[in-house]
Amino acid sequence: MSEASSNNANKSMDDIMALCKRRGFIYQASEIYGGINGFWDYGPLGAQLKKNLRDAWWQDVVMNPCVGRPGPDGEPVEIVPVDTCIIQNPKVWEASGHVGGFNDPMIDCRESKARYRADHVRAISGKGKRNEAPIFAFLTDTPSETKQRKAAAKKFGNEIEEFDLLELGTDFANVLGPDADTLGTLTEPRAFNLMFKTFVGATSAQTDENAAYLRPETAQGIFINFKNVVDTTRVSVPFGIAQTGKAFRNEVTPRNFTFRSREFEQMEIEFFCHADDAKTWFTFWRDWRYQWWQEIGLAGDNLILRNHDSDELAHYAKEGEGTSDIEYRFPFTAPGFGELEGIAHRGNFDLTQHEEHSKKKMQYFDTTRGELAPNGQPKGEWYTPHCIEPSAGLDRGVLAIICEAYTPDESRASKVYMKFHPRVAPIKAAVFPLVNKDGMPEKAAELHQELVKKFGHLGAIETDAKQSIGKRYARMDEAGCPICFTIDGDTLTDGTITVRDRDTAEQKRIPMAQASAYLAEVLGM
Amino acid sequence: MSEASSNNANKSMDDIMALCKRRGFIYQASEIYGGINGFWDYGPLGAQLKKNLRDAWWQDVVMNPCVGRPGPDGEPVEIVPVDTCIIQNPKVWEASGHVGGFNDPMIDCRESKARYRADHVRAISGKGKRNEAPIFAFLTDTPSETKQRKAAAKKFGNEIEEFDLLELGTDFANVLGPDADTLGTLTEPRAFNLMFKTFVGATSAQTDENAAYLRPETAQGIFINFKNVVDTTRVSVPFGIAQTGKAFRNEVTPRNFTFRSREFEQMEIEFFCHADDAKTWFTFWRDWRYQWWQEIGLAGDNLILRNHDSDELAHYAKEGEGTSDIEYRFPFTAPGFGELEGIAHRGNFDLTQHEEHSKKKMQYFDTTRGELAPNGQPKGEWYTPHCIEPSAGLDRGVLAIICEAYTPDESRASKVYMKFHPRVAPIKAAVFPLVNKDGMPEKAAELHQELVKKFGHLGAIETDAKQSIGKRYARMDEAGCPICFTIDGDTLTDGTITVRDRDTAEQKRIPMAQASAYLAEVLGM
Repeated sequence: MSEASSNNANKSMDDIMALCKRRGFIYQASEIYGGINGFWDYGPLGAQLKKNLRDAWWQDVVMNPCVGRPGPDGEPVEIVPVDTCIIQNPKVWEASGHVGGFNDPMIDCRESKARYRADHVRAISGKGKRNEAPIFAFLTDTPSETKQRKAAAKKFGNEIEEFDLLELGTDFANVLGPDADTLGTLTEPRAFNLMFKTFVGATSAQTDENAAYLRPETAQGIFINFKNVVDTTRVSVPFGIAQTGKAFRNEVTPRNFTFRSREFEQMEIEFFCHADDAKTWFTFWRDWRYQWWQEIGLAGDNLILRNHDSDELAHYAKEGEGTSDIEYRFPFTAPGFGELEGIAHRGNFDLTQHEEHSKKKMQYFDTTRGELAPNGQPKGEWYTPHCIEPSAGLDRGVLAIICEAYTPDESRASKVYMKFHPRVAPIKAAVFPLVNKDGMPEKAAELHQELVKKFGHLGAIETDAKQSIGKRYARMDEAGCPICFTIDGDTLTDGTITVRDRDTAEQKRIPMAQASAYLAEVLGM
Repeated sequence: MSEASSNNANKSMDDIMALCKRRGFIYQASEIYGGINGFWDYGPLGAQLKKNLRDAWWQDVVMNPCVGRPGPDGEPVEIVPVDTCIIQNPKVWEASGHVGGFNDPMIDCRESKARYRADHVRAISGKGKRNEAPIFAFLTDTPSETKQRKAAAKKFGNEIEEFDLLELGTDFANVLGPDADTLGTLTEPRAFNLMFKTFVGATSAQTDENAAYLRPETAQGIFINFKNVVDTTRVSVPFGIAQTGKAFRNEVTPRNFTFRSREFEQMEIEFFCHADDAKTWFTFWRDWRYQWWQEIGLAGDNLILRNHDSDELAHYAKEGEGTSDIEYRFPFTAPGFGELEGIAHRGNFDLTQHEEHSKKKMQYFDTTRGELAPNGQPKGEWYTPHCIEPSAGLDRGVLAIICEAYTPDESRASKVYMKFHPRVAPIKAAVFPLVNKDGMPEKAAELHQELVKKFGHLGAIETDAKQSIGKRYARMDEAGCPICFTIDGDTLTDGTITVRDRDTAEQKRIPMAQASAYLAEVLGM
């Protein structure tokens, strides 16, 4: 994968998005109605790719935690799943801090009426004192975009200076808005809550009394069920609770394809441990999650582990507590990186908040701790567990896998192929009759049925008898199907078939009877 | 299963709900905050059970459609998946009829302020003319409840007459409200839209311009992508598009545990075919879906196939088009039944609506139809495909499986066991050391690891060394774990282990080396 990894900066997002549409990976949501900003639908290949990634996570996190790797205490890692509602009692979000604090500072351009995240707008002033000279505000997420904008801005001044727009304080007059060509004015930053609001109950009144929110993270569904899980299962600290599911954030500027969308899916683990063990578990989870993404196909220097700067910490992270991101170099962030999964040490913030707001005790009685009783056994200890949270974005994972897999190759009919790791590839193998006659379709159907029976639980086994074999291979290249088996004239006489490898485009002959074993090896079974 | 099937009327929902809570199948959502009416969270066992059912459906519908059974045309059934957004452009719901027509007629009790679905309220009048005599309104969903209420109402009149409250027209004065003890008045029925509304975009204004809805069904996400799927894949009519996902309905009276909740998950297929073939495909899907639920464990007379009466047809169903329900006898519907899956012939209603509203052509060009050209090939034919929709409720499926599995047995320590079909059982097997010493834990860990490696992709393999073996068996009985393997003193000398069967509670000894093969047979591998 390293060859593909090294040149993500050269991959065109436009090309990748075109392939995603053309091959049915990802469509614009409500496309026939002009779309809806920040929402994306998965087509047939994308839906299966997404399910495969979700299932791989579930298998390696829930069913066989950390693929059998013992925790730092030498014991098997214990994880149980939950599946909680998107809509909860609104008090959940008061306790979690999302009602009061889940805000982005927003600014409006008075002239264009457009609204921006203040912390995404970089300002560039001309020569002279900031508030005397014209100020040019730009919406920039990446250093390369900033550089480009700065160059374009040079015509307004001999020297330019770049700074955070928020540094300006309250003086936002006389700026060039990000999408305007003439000088205008920006409003002061205002708080804007990112939660989608709705109204629950048998009344159409849109009152605060009936207000509820779509969850902005799956994590809180875990915290509010912490006591239920402790009381109704056999788990004991340290243990984790995991779930996957949709979450919603009314992002001000959804952008970069599915990277920052308003509806997305998370794969979250909340791992509860004693405060004394939190740092050790944090390191364990960070390292294993980093390894996991590598094993799923994001190898090479496009994937990095980055420790947060202290000023980036979320509202729940205390000073000195770790937060690390697993980041991927997307084409739109290159040469920089974008977050794929965050591993946060949330302390005991969430359980403490829910204890305060619900008046329900969230403490855990640990029979293995506390001073020793006269009989030599520990007396036990009550405490509020600390929590390590590996929180991954499923859509971002899919997007990274798509970007990583995307491999231009001018020598092929398709000009590009998708180098998916076999574990996540939506189609595992294809079976083609060279021509749709002379007994070949029957042989192909026979092999197809055999492979569906043996490998159908892992993914689709394609079959197709129409079009030239070259076109069919090209289609499988774009779908990222690792292996094509072709039945031809020789199959009927000597029982051999052609095997075509996606990554090398090379073909060789094997006995049809060995096709299953061949595919099993490719799929790592 | 027939023994359990025959007595669902005797199973107590209170007992079943208590077990669901006690063993971590299902919790009240936001329980620590007093809950939120109509929302339920799945605990560890429930989350896995739900995932197993969803995966079984995906495997048998998407990966290997109809488990290889050919369609009525003799060809393999073709299905591709999608995964679409919960929030779409609001025009989707105008076109589908949900903005204008997805309403329940609601009535309010002026005295108690309670609101009811008018079509759920049955009225019972005393002797005499309806509008002169007192009228007693009751909220009744089931015939048995109506009977009970009628008996209680007899004290108000010598003879009673039961009729639909809506028959009364506009005169709702002088009635006894469903939850009132004194005479009061009900308002006239008013339309109440069941869709949850929210507001999208970088403004906090709750205006119609920004309004959007949480999808009330996953089906429309399929219809709006029909052309995308046709244009970007190799499907040809007849074919289906399938997806699973959350849907939301602001039910007026959420009730009966997870049966009628406000947030729920659907498993839907939209199968597109020529109008001429629609009846044949309808029958095919109805029969196969009925068989599927039986094979997943809902056998016996608790499961029925029921054809809709013509006055029950949904707004999209034309006269004469079929609609059938697969219904299950839940304890709260017994002796009646509740819907598990509906198989509807939707005609071409949805595609036609979206064509009209989006101005995008939804017709399909079928190269196999039309009159013959001079070369003997068909000229092809444009048409709007008809659609057969097998639409299942995942939460209802889980609830039916739980009710079916629930088997009281006074002879056991647990007094009850859960007779899950092995395919959906959240825990596939358990491995216990009889005591937590003398080399038994090591042997148990060895067998546990072997089973995790071989069967971990199918479900959890439990292990637990604490408590008496009787308590551990009891816990597995309540969790519905089909098989327990126990390592005891003999294991260390002769290599045999105990196998305990959940359904018979009988134990026998087998060589530990045969445990894998034994479990494989139980799991039908």
